[in-house]
Amino acid sequence: MPNISASPLTAAAFAEFGDVLDATGDFRLINEGLCHRHHNRAKIDIGSEATTGISIFNAQPRQLPYTFSLIERHPEGSQAFIPMTQHPFLVIVAADTTSTPRAFLTNGAQGINLHRGTWHGVLTPLSAPGLFAVVDRIGFTANLEEFHYPQAFCVIA
Amino acid sequence: MPNISASPLTAAAFAEFGDVLDATGDFRLINEGLCHRHHNRAKIDIGSEATTGISIFNAQPRQLPYTFSLIERHPEGSQAFIPMTQHPFLVIVAADTTSTPRAFLTNGAQGINLHRGTWHGVLTPLSAPGLFAVVDRIGFTANLEEFHYPQAFCVIA
Repeated sequence: MPNISASPLTAAAFAEFGDVLDATGDFRLINEGLCHRHHNRAKIDIGSEATTGISIFNAQPRQLPYTFSLIERHPEGSQAFIPMTQHPFLVIVAADTTSTPRAFLTNGAQGINLHRGTWHGVLTPLSAPGLFAVVDRIGFTANLEEFHYPQAFCVIA
Repeated sequence: MPNISASPLTAAAFAEFGDVLDATGDFRLINEGLCHRHHNRAKIDIGSEATTGISIFNAQPRQLPYTFSLIERHPEGSQAFIPMTQHPFLVIVAADTTSTPRAFLTNGAQGINLHRGTWHGVLTPLSAPGLFAVVDRIGFTANLEEFHYPQAFCVIA
């Protein structure tokens, strides 16, 4: 079974898949100087005939090494995952279904926004509680494609 | 100076001001049973000629007792605050500018979504880091009204 090493999540490495949501880079000073606003960090893209919603996900923690063979994508909308904890979590993405998937590990102060149509693994927290706010498309279509690799991959630290 | 006691944040007590975003109540089982999706918990309302965005706020922690005399509201849109930590934070809201404001304390696993036009205090984390994802209206207008009470209030535990 091929191994995939999880890399630290950076905006540059993640750019082809989505946005990193963190308190780095430019900001506006608000609330009499007591708050930094890192403005509009996610490319939200939900198409037409839909709205943007906030859902709360509570996912069972996994551990490394982590084996998977399923990826999925949402053809009709972007999907942001905002951890409601300071625990790093695992992010699996793929450029397409024929290349080797990529794995990233967040630093405990990062969310992500997967661009519309990005292939990704299911939500994989590494600690309890696996609590996330998810900002994605609310519509009446399935908005889901799944792909099973012919072989499993194993993510290692 | 009048004291205001901070109450535990509950959906019922907060209903007139906004939504509580947490992993309670109904859910859909996704990802082969390993994740609960508490679906579409926030009433996002950004009006027309605007988009919904995700910004990251990094606010200086405050402490109780906490004195304030300023509240604000966003007449053109709702505003959700999702803590990226498990620290409780303080939520100050008011039904109008003539009644006594209300204070709530989150339980460490709750975000909030202030309904459009709800008077509220500035973001007041009680621990470092004061890190939040904020889902609100991205537009080209100020979308801000401020009100200074003629006297200060003091929030106590």
